[in-house]
Amino acid sequence: MGNDQRDNPVEPLAMNGGDGQYSYSQNSTLQKKGIECVKDLITEGIVENLETERFLSPSCQKKISIADLGCAMGPNTFIAVQHIIDSVKLKFQSDGIDSESTEFHVFFNDHVVNDFNTLFTSTPSDKEYYAAGVPGSFHNRLFPKASLDFFHSSYSLQWLSKLPKELVDKQSPAWNKGKVYYPSSAKEVVEAYGKQFGKDMESFLNARALEIVSGGLMALLVPSAQDPHRKCVITSVFDLLGSALMDLAGQGLVDEDKVDNFNLSIYIPSPDEIASLIENNGDFIIKKMDPLLAHQETDPGTMVMHLRAGMESNIRENFGAEIVDQVFDKFKEKIEESAVLIDPTYKRTYGLFVLLKRKHY
Amino acid sequence: MGNDQRDNPVEPLAMNGGDGQYSYSQNSTLQKKGIECVKDLITEGIVENLETERFLSPSCQKKISIADLGCAMGPNTFIAVQHIIDSVKLKFQSDGIDSESTEFHVFFNDHVVNDFNTLFTSTPSDKEYYAAGVPGSFHNRLFPKASLDFFHSSYSLQWLSKLPKELVDKQSPAWNKGKVYYPSSAKEVVEAYGKQFGKDMESFLNARALEIVSGGLMALLVPSAQDPHRKCVITSVFDLLGSALMDLAGQGLVDEDKVDNFNLSIYIPSPDEIASLIENNGDFIIKKMDPLLAHQETDPGTMVMHLRAGMESNIRENFGAEIVDQVFDKFKEKIEESAVLIDPTYKRTYGLFVLLKRKHY
Repeated sequence: MGNDQRDNPVEPLAMNGGDGQYSYSQNSTLQKKGIECVKDLITEGIVENLETERFLSPSCQKKISIADLGCAMGPNTFIAVQHIIDSVKLKFQSDGIDSESTEFHVFFNDHVVNDFNTLFTSTPSDKEYYAAGVPGSFHNRLFPKASLDFFHSSYSLQWLSKLPKELVDKQSPAWNKGKVYYPSSAKEVVEAYGKQFGKDMESFLNARALEIVSGGLMALLVPSAQDPHRKCVITSVFDLLGSALMDLAGQGLVDEDKVDNFNLSIYIPSPDEIASLIENNGDFIIKKMDPLLAHQETDPGTMVMHLRAGMESNIRENFGAEIVDQVFDKFKEKIEESAVLIDPTYKRTYGLFVLLKRKHY
Repeated sequence: MGNDQRDNPVEPLAMNGGDGQYSYSQNSTLQKKGIECVKDLITEGIVENLETERFLSPSCQKKISIADLGCAMGPNTFIAVQHIIDSVKLKFQSDGIDSESTEFHVFFNDHVVNDFNTLFTSTPSDKEYYAAGVPGSFHNRLFPKASLDFFHSSYSLQWLSKLPKELVDKQSPAWNKGKVYYPSSAKEVVEAYGKQFGKDMESFLNARALEIVSGGLMALLVPSAQDPHRKCVITSVFDLLGSALMDLAGQGLVDEDKVDNFNLSIYIPSPDEIASLIENNGDFIIKKMDPLLAHQETDPGTMVMHLRAGMESNIRENFGAEIVDQVFDKFKEKIEESAVLIDPTYKRTYGLFVLLKRKHY
């Protein structure tokens, strides 16, 4: 199975560790809002779809295994997991199953470069579950067959496992010169991104279909938009990072070749794309697919702080530690100058909540 | 169940992280020798005692869950785990079970302050198992009921979960004034240590008895000596750390009160003590209890480097970062001056290998 770090041609992104000013743990309030939004959807999904027949037998060991894929280092993952547990207990109670004797085994997964030390030391002291950390890419297998009852993944599937080679190939029509993202790029660039996202979703769903119990549930929260490649807030904001870097290149502060060779490994799919990838996989039934309300408006400063927590390590590695502050300052300027956050014709990216049920096998 | 860090009145010891000069990963060759010594004992134990009947059915999912308790941050844990897997495969082959389709789920456990980030990034890239890290004290429950097939713990059970309060109580006959260990202390000190070890073994065995499958195996490697409290190399060496600290106190470099209030949270039991604690618990059958050959001789420098990897954080916390180097220099001097490593009447502490089988339930 191998260690994803060594097999993977691109470095997975690590959220900023620790709990400092630019840390993910201090700058993940947008993700937290998303988690709050899906609370009721998860409870409803579990109450309506969790199969509890096997737990009705008094001799059956009541154990529920839950994994959060792309957990980062907290605190959102602890909130999400506790909510899943509360919902399972509610379902057990309504089905007359003794939930007191139920044991919960929770697996926190993220890339091997994630700060698991921070995750582990911040695990709630009053947790009602047995916790384990699972390092590795969720595009690969992470668990033995049929070992998980419930998968959860929030704001993680948008990260690509690798960037299409064509983006940095001067001979290719998908060469993404002078840009780091795709909304204002040639259609070949958008297609290359979309193709990689399709491959990643395929690996993801194939792995989970084996790891989940027959009839098990999977709740996904994915950034998504109806027409994500045109006049959409989040993709347009990412595009402005390219303009910021090109401005710094114009000032001789950043090497232009480096900008040409750098691309963000994030893809924002449409709901139709997601639905069609799930149907192509064929192992899951879509029980629910609900667009969430748009995030509330954000000012450029907050948005940059939020994005910095996830992007900083990538920028540092590609352009050097000494330029990081200037890159994010210029990025903020670019957002302030643009109409993206104020022009209502720019559609806000919303999260898409998807509840899947594993077909019986 | 709670987070052991917050419930536990004493700080658990963290091995030195990373891979620098004083790191555990660079200074754990003695433990590695122990692991090498028990290789054949583990293979033999698995071949003779692993119950494979349930895997003979073609419809049975072939999954073996293994936990290494007190894994530190590698590399020894990877060697030990791989050896257990190889032995299980050997047993499966000899029993005519398809070992190719067997999946191994490996749980690496240590205190929440262990450097799991280093452990995860150094996990072998060609590993044949699904890996998870489990933070928490093995004196508490770590896993759901009946979820593990095989437990392994090497050179970890000697760490006490807490120090007896009497050791620092001026009114108690067990007050350990001017010392940090017990071989030259009053018998009340030795008894207080032994009593705590007994409590810890009781919690350890109670937790494992619930977590292991009926008929499951547990292999323990514990530092042990026939008469560990008298003229025994390792306990006498630990005692010399007290003399070193008292010398520094005499020079005004260390506060004498701090020495009085500091004690090492390590206990070296005799084989009889271990056997009797296992029998008192009553859930396990002792399948094997083999003393290992004494470690080969060690020079004072190597011994101090080896002990420093496990003790440094404790010394730093209690006496301050600025004095750490001097403490270990003086400790080395004390060992050089003493007869402990050369006088043959000092018995070498050997590891005791214990193979336990969970009684059927």
